[in-house]
Amino acid sequence: MQELAGLVRAVPDFPTTGVLFRDVSPLLASASAFARCIDALAEPWQGLGVQAVCGIEARGFIFGAALAQRLHAGFVPLRKPNKLPPPVLAVDYQLEYGSDRLEAQREAVRPGERVLLVDDVLATGGTLAAAAALADLLGAELVGASVVVELTALQGRTRWQQGTPLHSLLRY
Amino acid sequence: MQELAGLVRAVPDFPTTGVLFRDVSPLLASASAFARCIDALAEPWQGLGVQAVCGIEARGFIFGAALAQRLHAGFVPLRKPNKLPPPVLAVDYQLEYGSDRLEAQREAVRPGERVLLVDDVLATGGTLAAAAALADLLGAELVGASVVVELTALQGRTRWQQGTPLHSLLRY
Repeated sequence: MQELAGLVRAVPDFPTTGVLFRDVSPLLASASAFARCIDALAEPWQGLGVQAVCGIEARGFIFGAALAQRLHAGFVPLRKPNKLPPPVLAVDYQLEYGSDRLEAQREAVRPGERVLLVDDVLATGGTLAAAAALADLLGAELVGASVVVELTALQGRTRWQQGTPLHSLLRY
Repeated sequence: MQELAGLVRAVPDFPTTGVLFRDVSPLLASASAFARCIDALAEPWQGLGVQAVCGIEARGFIFGAALAQRLHAGFVPLRKPNKLPPPVLAVDYQLEYGSDRLEAQREAVRPGERVLLVDDVLATGGTLAAAAALADLLGAELVGASVVVELTALQGRTRWQQGTPLHSLLRY
């Protein structure tokens, strides 16, 4: 994990002043580090019967799709508004300034299908909570969630539902 | 391939009137079809020493990341403007109405690194040509490109550089 942490670059003032962005690009660019990252993401879910991995746009697609293959699961994209063809289901959620929306196709998941949520970063937890609400709306059974980076100071974990596993690989 | 083709849904008038959208969501949602799709995408490149897969935002991330794992390669995201932290390199390209820009991080690829471009759909070919130009700007050695769906009527292949392999799984 030490080696993976060394491949996440801290970028000050991106995308806006005052934000310290955690850039996973160097980790992805290394074939061996990317493979180890997917191994580590998969590890807690082995044998738990995950049938679909729901990746959150856009970096969640990268980790989620690779993880879906590793877990022999399908992949379901959770997208920003107006990207998916209808019929879709949507969940609105609050950001620090304004609001956002996450969409999934209505028939993306079979009722009771065991799904895992994946994103690159857990910050304030709003997006991941919205993804969980969307999984519920789809009729899925939520097995848990995995993120690569958890920004612990932002306390996103407090917005996550108790009793459902949430794993992070790297914590800052 | 017949089975995969049956899992691509034709959606009329999406995202705008008159466009017949090819929706790969049902293919992704099927664990076995998604795995077979990645097998088929990987097949022509086995043994050719691909070191990095460059996936084009956003659906190219899904196929590209899974393919990178299958080929034991790294993954490099080619993104829409202002998504990647600096320093970045960019290529502008023309769309039917207006223009767009594709960006990559300047140090995403080592000089001479053997890269493969991946996207979900080849339509008019503008995006894929821009991605090839960006790979060149990065100093990469372009091994080729793979797309899942080729819309042959739009003749995108005519905009692709002769002598460099371009593979598509499904043609409409």
